[in-house]
Amino acid sequence: MPKLRDLGERETIEFLKGILDREKLPVRIGDDCAAISFGDDYLLVTTDVINQRTHIPKGATSYQIGWHIVAINLSDIAAMGGKPIGIVVAMSLPRTFDMASLKEIAKGMDECAREFDLAIIGGDTKESQEISLCWTAFGLVPKNRILLRSGARIGDVVGVTGELGKAGWSEFMIKKGKGGGKAIENLLKIHPRINEGLLLSKTGWATSCIDISDGLASSLYQLTAASSVFFEIDFDRLPIFDEAGKLPDKVKDLALYHGGDYELLATVNPKGLDLVQREFKKAGKKFTPIGAVVEDKGNTLITRKGIEKLENKGYEHFR
Amino acid sequence: MPKLRDLGERETIEFLKGILDREKLPVRIGDDCAAISFGDDYLLVTTDVINQRTHIPKGATSYQIGWHIVAINLSDIAAMGGKPIGIVVAMSLPRTFDMASLKEIAKGMDECAREFDLAIIGGDTKESQEISLCWTAFGLVPKNRILLRSGARIGDVVGVTGELGKAGWSEFMIKKGKGGGKAIENLLKIHPRINEGLLLSKTGWATSCIDISDGLASSLYQLTAASSVFFEIDFDRLPIFDEAGKLPDKVKDLALYHGGDYELLATVNPKGLDLVQREFKKAGKKFTPIGAVVEDKGNTLITRKGIEKLENKGYEHFR
Repeated sequence: MPKLRDLGERETIEFLKGILDREKLPVRIGDDCAAISFGDDYLLVTTDVINQRTHIPKGATSYQIGWHIVAINLSDIAAMGGKPIGIVVAMSLPRTFDMASLKEIAKGMDECAREFDLAIIGGDTKESQEISLCWTAFGLVPKNRILLRSGARIGDVVGVTGELGKAGWSEFMIKKGKGGGKAIENLLKIHPRINEGLLLSKTGWATSCIDISDGLASSLYQLTAASSVFFEIDFDRLPIFDEAGKLPDKVKDLALYHGGDYELLATVNPKGLDLVQREFKKAGKKFTPIGAVVEDKGNTLITRKGIEKLENKGYEHFR
Repeated sequence: MPKLRDLGERETIEFLKGILDREKLPVRIGDDCAAISFGDDYLLVTTDVINQRTHIPKGATSYQIGWHIVAINLSDIAAMGGKPIGIVVAMSLPRTFDMASLKEIAKGMDECAREFDLAIIGGDTKESQEISLCWTAFGLVPKNRILLRSGARIGDVVGVTGELGKAGWSEFMIKKGKGGGKAIENLLKIHPRINEGLLLSKTGWATSCIDISDGLASSLYQLTAASSVFFEIDFDRLPIFDEAGKLPDKVKDLALYHGGDYELLATVNPKGLDLVQREFKKAGKKFTPIGAVVEDKGNTLITRKGIEKLENKGYEHFR
């Protein structure tokens, strides 16, 4: 019988869908959030867990860990165009865990939640050998404004919020032993794109959306799978994080094939692109067109050297 | 600086409340579920995590584990009088975890969810050293029908659903090496009292409610803390599980001071007791009065030998 490591995270989710998925769900298992019909709205629900050995970089503070896990949950709500309304936390901790660290985790959680105007409304604490923190966030989105992974259409513009390669650069520096506090801060104190998701949703012109926590290329392939379209990405248009741009041998890897940048990737009907960009500008936010949705059978990257295949690689658990 | 083991679970929750709690929350942190205002209803949210080493008895099947964690979540919804509407799951699993076990866990989850007419709507899978399963369930309850831990009034009748001591007896048998499959099944394949909670809520006569997963005595003390009242429990009226009743030296411990019976403990206005009992009978369910809410400063147990102090002990994590 196969093990999890033989399948990887995404095939494991497919496997579970085979057992659990129901035709009647408004959003099929596998999107950024689950959804429940609620009058004119959907209640969005997303759950995330981080574990000490596989997720938390050495040198991270308890405060940063608390902030991070709330933030990554909110990123999933953002990707569906939702407004977050609450969050619960289940913490599995060793008996020897000290209360000073717990206080810092709680402070990090609380400050991230306040930043986005919601509350930690409850939770659970249990004893374990390994630290494991599980957060579940809820949000609301009007039914006719939900952003899904499906919906991208040929001719749409594909764009991304913020900058690319910040997480990749930070991990690269940590691996080289040059990371320091700044690199860890970049990785953990992320700012979920709640306002950007709400803008994309409200304009009505976004046709699909996903967060790129698994990496840009990997997320494009996930949109391909959900929307049955392909992407032509123009490398020169990518909004590259400054420091990553200074590493010419590495920049492609860091910007395209690396997880941890919690930006939103969205496709937009070209008729609405001007409006979307105006709304972003008005709000002091960034949405950069990086390519087009195309019919060709494959995802490609246009560079100054020519056209190459965009690889389907990024971050995946159990692999 | 103190460690978790110095405080125990309930003090740890108090500690976290100090950082996280907000005056504006409709239900304060520490009740069975958190609540978010939602038109005429509350959205109830509860999250629970179980970890391999501390929670799962040896010999438990993957199917039973899957069933159990869905069921304990639903028990928290039941304690607030809610109707469950969905559940999400975050699974932390070792890379070497086999897919056959994962399939059985998913089957257990799915069958428990179907039994109570809801769906597993999404989740997360991550890599870890230790198996850790985190479930979050949500439900709905009309605002004027929510059951809280606070609200018990002097003169109310206190009663309990189902039977007491089944979990205690099962663990006792397992410890003696006589447990076998039946005892493990008793502990894990529990039936959350959703219908009972809905009945208590709908009649409008229940004044407070809690699930007794930490043990009957411990739960009475939690109602005392939330409602500022005391209880006089009549040992002879307790609906004792048959097998536990056959162990006269043990029965008090098993029925009062042992966690794992996922029954509901509720206080009921005496004017409505007949109606509540009629409604339960009509539905083929059991609600047994076991004592009274009193003014005296202390929780007591009336036995044939006299009146004794009810001890504040039961199951608590980190202790």
